[in-house]
Amino acid sequence: MKRRSFLKGAAVAGVSATAVASTFPKPALSQNKRKWRMVTTWPKNLPGLGTGAQYFADMVTKCSDGRLTIQLHASGEIVPAFESIDAVKAGTVEMGHGAPYYWKGKAPASQFVSNFPFGLTAQEYNGWYHFGGGAALCDEVYEPLGCKFLVCGNTGVQHPGWSTKEVNTLEDFKGLKMRMPGIGAEVMRRLGATVVNLPGSEVSAALAAGTIDWVEWNNPYGEASMGFWRHAKYYYTPGWHECGTVLETFINRSAWDGLEDDLKAIVEACAFATNDVMLSEFQARSGPILQQFVTQHGVKIRRLSDDQLAKIGEVVGEVITELVADDPMSKKVFDNMNKYRAEQIAYSSTTEEDFFRARSLDYKWPKP
Amino acid sequence: MKRRSFLKGAAVAGVSATAVASTFPKPALSQNKRKWRMVTTWPKNLPGLGTGAQYFADMVTKCSDGRLTIQLHASGEIVPAFESIDAVKAGTVEMGHGAPYYWKGKAPASQFVSNFPFGLTAQEYNGWYHFGGGAALCDEVYEPLGCKFLVCGNTGVQHPGWSTKEVNTLEDFKGLKMRMPGIGAEVMRRLGATVVNLPGSEVSAALAAGTIDWVEWNNPYGEASMGFWRHAKYYYTPGWHECGTVLETFINRSAWDGLEDDLKAIVEACAFATNDVMLSEFQARSGPILQQFVTQHGVKIRRLSDDQLAKIGEVVGEVITELVADDPMSKKVFDNMNKYRAEQIAYSSTTEEDFFRARSLDYKWPKP
Repeated sequence: MKRRSFLKGAAVAGVSATAVASTFPKPALSQNKRKWRMVTTWPKNLPGLGTGAQYFADMVTKCSDGRLTIQLHASGEIVPAFESIDAVKAGTVEMGHGAPYYWKGKAPASQFVSNFPFGLTAQEYNGWYHFGGGAALCDEVYEPLGCKFLVCGNTGVQHPGWSTKEVNTLEDFKGLKMRMPGIGAEVMRRLGATVVNLPGSEVSAALAAGTIDWVEWNNPYGEASMGFWRHAKYYYTPGWHECGTVLETFINRSAWDGLEDDLKAIVEACAFATNDVMLSEFQARSGPILQQFVTQHGVKIRRLSDDQLAKIGEVVGEVITELVADDPMSKKVFDNMNKYRAEQIAYSSTTEEDFFRARSLDYKWPKP
Repeated sequence: MKRRSFLKGAAVAGVSATAVASTFPKPALSQNKRKWRMVTTWPKNLPGLGTGAQYFADMVTKCSDGRLTIQLHASGEIVPAFESIDAVKAGTVEMGHGAPYYWKGKAPASQFVSNFPFGLTAQEYNGWYHFGGGAALCDEVYEPLGCKFLVCGNTGVQHPGWSTKEVNTLEDFKGLKMRMPGIGAEVMRRLGATVVNLPGSEVSAALAAGTIDWVEWNNPYGEASMGFWRHAKYYYTPGWHECGTVLETFINRSAWDGLEDDLKAIVEACAFATNDVMLSEFQARSGPILQQFVTQHGVKIRRLSDDQLAKIGEVVGEVITELVADDPMSKKVFDNMNKYRAEQIAYSSTTEEDFFRARSLDYKWPKP
């Protein structure tokens, strides 16, 4: 029986709600409601990131029956994207949804909370977060940011980018004008590329004008509307630079501490559900879009060579070594993740990795 | 502020709860509570499966603040494991936690709801469930079972088993006495193995006695306490037979339909959170245990050869073709999954699969 129709029926019959134990009505307590604002670092309903954040907000509202209503605000509506965490810390808004590495200027270790190049897959990272000591370490990183951290989404392994020209050797990186952020950018700079930063709105024009030769974004579902294929026909793999980028919700610490235990549990369950659902959306929807790129837009998929990747891996190691030497909290988080990573490389090589190998062999299979 | 201490404080001060809007107390409505029983097909707190089911039950109870308390019952406590779904259908208990393929005798398509050999990884399956039409198809399969279906856990890629002898060629499967269930068992039978079914409690003794040569179970975390390594030193990869086995909660349809919308949302969010958390537990905890197998117990990891795997893949295809020819609902589910699988093979080969390749190259890396 729907609650609304029950209450209506009860009113007609003149029966007080508490007298009807078997149908469990809930009293209407209009004062028993919180409205929280969640700023995001994404445009509203941006495929994957924006839609995932909306799912999270809506699920909390539904699960709490409106006792905790979360109103999502796109980047720029209340504060610019990169000021989101300041607004949450100050209590201007109660919470946010973003990517941890955006806060590296305030808490360098947050770029490891995001995962790191040549790091963990989404599945491995989730293991670290839930059962490898990750959750407590993430909260420790976010303490000076005045926030409670919860993992709340993942992109999976991304693509390293679209190029206007083929790059087959290490030499080919030299002089390449690339749009790529983060640790990946520093690695490419050391390999001779010229790295520029551009907002998404200017990337296609820059490719067309030859101002840049290469653009990194995320994955087919997130790139479908960008039209990079118009100017850059080579789509490279694999996403060594972002191998399972973590998304997050960050909640003003006092607001979090003031929540009743059931609402805390709801926020946590919905964050972890979003972790499952957002990755699912990237995964499911990128499949057919990748096919369209190839069959309809003449995109050529190219793998970085093993020579290129091994050198990139080594430079990633050097950059990380420098980063953790500069910041004790970064060292603490990375050391923990790096030990876990070694165990996971061994385990994943006997499971997911080895299964992919088997599945891609040549055998007769029912035609789809 | 904790609710309990607030209520205590309010009573001392003589302040009525509803008068203090800013701290949002909730009235104690003892009649506003449901207690549901959840039967599981697992022993209590069995690593991974049992602990995951317990997490799910506890999270629903916490999120609903006890309005929906879920009491977990181990297999055999109320009904034997394989009668769980009958007990739920009959309304003896409200819900269950298990593995879909257990119900193939009642609804053959449930073995595809579980995923299938050479099928989808956990991450791919979740994409299918949430964004590929999977959720609606699963509910259609469970309609004659009188249940609402929700995905609620995953093992990830399993290991195909422990062997007392090396098997390097297709010929080596002939006469091998194997403990393996499901579609995998039928495939091995067609390749000449003698397949037996044994409960977990008898497997180690059977290995020791030579009654069986090979045992399939799940993965290192789930096998740690079984001690198979005492009698079988060869641990094979990859888990072609169970490449991301799905766990589920199934809920009596009338009980589900009678839930208020917020409790439905809570059960759903907690099921999806469990989907994230259970896989995380298998992933995180199997890593170090696999290392212990090798370093402390002398276990030798062996890969099935490409020849063996390609032939196995072909026989899997034949068995599936027969299964779907016999049952229209199986055909409907498999056809949908198989189309999605083809897209995912292309996408995963450019992402997760290609990243594993890169990460396993030889490069200098900060020592863990």
